[in-house]
Amino acid sequence: MNEFDFIRSIKQSTYRNAATIKGIGDDAAVFRQSYHDIVTAVDTFVDGVHFSKQTMDPFQIGYRALAANLSDMAAMGANPIAYLVSIVVPPHYSDQDLAEIYRGLDTIAQKYQLDLIGGDTVTGEQLVLSVTINGAVERDKVRYRHLMKPDDLIFVTGTLGDSAAGLELLLSEQSDIKGANYLIDRHRKPTPRINFAKRLAPIDRIALNDISDGIASELNELAQASHLTIYSNTAKLPVSEPLKQFSRDRQLEYILNGGEDFELVGSVARKDWPIVKQIAKQTETPIVIIGEVIDQETTNGTVWIKNNKVYDKLHSSGYVHRN
Amino acid sequence: MNEFDFIRSIKQSTYRNAATIKGIGDDAAVFRQSYHDIVTAVDTFVDGVHFSKQTMDPFQIGYRALAANLSDMAAMGANPIAYLVSIVVPPHYSDQDLAEIYRGLDTIAQKYQLDLIGGDTVTGEQLVLSVTINGAVERDKVRYRHLMKPDDLIFVTGTLGDSAAGLELLLSEQSDIKGANYLIDRHRKPTPRINFAKRLAPIDRIALNDISDGIASELNELAQASHLTIYSNTAKLPVSEPLKQFSRDRQLEYILNGGEDFELVGSVARKDWPIVKQIAKQTETPIVIIGEVIDQETTNGTVWIKNNKVYDKLHSSGYVHRN
Repeated sequence: MNEFDFIRSIKQSTYRNAATIKGIGDDAAVFRQSYHDIVTAVDTFVDGVHFSKQTMDPFQIGYRALAANLSDMAAMGANPIAYLVSIVVPPHYSDQDLAEIYRGLDTIAQKYQLDLIGGDTVTGEQLVLSVTINGAVERDKVRYRHLMKPDDLIFVTGTLGDSAAGLELLLSEQSDIKGANYLIDRHRKPTPRINFAKRLAPIDRIALNDISDGIASELNELAQASHLTIYSNTAKLPVSEPLKQFSRDRQLEYILNGGEDFELVGSVARKDWPIVKQIAKQTETPIVIIGEVIDQETTNGTVWIKNNKVYDKLHSSGYVHRN
Repeated sequence: MNEFDFIRSIKQSTYRNAATIKGIGDDAAVFRQSYHDIVTAVDTFVDGVHFSKQTMDPFQIGYRALAANLSDMAAMGANPIAYLVSIVVPPHYSDQDLAEIYRGLDTIAQKYQLDLIGGDTVTGEQLVLSVTINGAVERDKVRYRHLMKPDDLIFVTGTLGDSAAGLELLLSEQSDIKGANYLIDRHRKPTPRINFAKRLAPIDRIALNDISDGIASELNELAQASHLTIYSNTAKLPVSEPLKQFSRDRQLEYILNGGEDFELVGSVARKDWPIVKQIAKQTETPIVIIGEVIDQETTNGTVWIKNNKVYDKLHSSGYVHRN
């Protein structure tokens, strides 16, 4: 039994508490109080697994942990309020290092008027940073991934694959790429699309996912959760100028599989697309249409992508099968 | 700068978000939505620091982690709703071990109609279990520790020092104590006083603390947060029959300093004491008065305890100074 099977096995199929609205299975969990849905998510980062001295300094570790968490709030359309920090600190870590992690957390927290409201600091062998974020949204306005409908347009914010390319540059210590710092910054200091997602509030229905595991995985999640078929096109996936220096194969690998861009992918009714586009403009959020949604019984739950004039099935892992 | 100084230095003195009601500094944090105050807390447990193979099996690790968290909810008078689990799993841990941790979590979750709504599972060198709990309470009914008033009575639930004695028995492998299993169970499977605390809801004002760090520390927190003086008496501190087999000095050490009993200590107006007593009876919660609250400018913020006919200052660390 692998980890995912295991998590699936403990996933409750019914909720015990009348307040619980959504458990495991979206970008964050939801419970209801009065006129609000409370949205909460936890992300855990381990030294040597999610980062290393080569890829991030303590400030960046803190900044990025909360950025990832905020991205989950954006993907739910929630207004972030406050966060809790659980940290396991190894003996070789100095107070200065620890202060830098908190400074990183606080720097991005300030941008979104977020309060640090609790935590637990304990000693251990390996640095573990676990951040729990809390937010709220008007009831029934959570942007679940199962809310996609037939004939919707699929859009994506920003550009894709930059974070994966940035990480690769850090690990390979390559330096002949123009705009390398841009790509590296996209890995270390991603911008959660909070302002854009919050402004979408007047729109009745939108399905949103944040791109933490690569667009291939996120599109499949949307298709599976909504039991519909997504058609996309590699030519429409947004690529940054620096990323264009890589071979097209490498670009596609980063774009489809490379996660942690923390952009948003969403599904919206055609009639609402002009409003989405306008809000994107107002919040200085680059946005493009990358596909559409079809109700097609034999393919529902899957994603198809056009590449070199041929439609192929796009698997979660991002590999484009030729049959 | 030690850890506590550090945490203090990052404690925000003002809140950025209008929804934030209480940050670091009580048993849990609070933010407000509509007619409810949302209460949240995180507790982190590390292998080799908080438990070992000698003291707990995986089921007990899970059970106890959530029990500790639930106790924070009780101490806030909150209705627990749901929890999130972040877990770092070392390679030598089997799926069976992991399943046992979750079974432990789920066993106590069932008792309180709690849902597991989210989490993050990652690999690492050392087992780290971090549980975040969410609950809610009618607005302005949170049981903050600063709510103590002059002339209040101080009460405590259950008996004290049992968990510390149980841990000692586990570590020393002593076996000549009658009721050793009772004490060990109190360490491994504490009972959070959720049902009692929830039923106190009709009472306007109560200050509550859960006993996670020993009654000496908790009483000092109440006195400091409320800027008042507490008078107590060692003869009134409730002792279980099994604990009475230890020398009186040892008993007092466990009772005053030994934490993790997860009982509640509270402060209530004399007029409300009969109601508290009645609710304790209805919920089968042993309860006794252990002291009273005085407004005495020169001693406010401190705790005094009678021991062998003499009043001594009771420090947070539990040591009774003779001068």
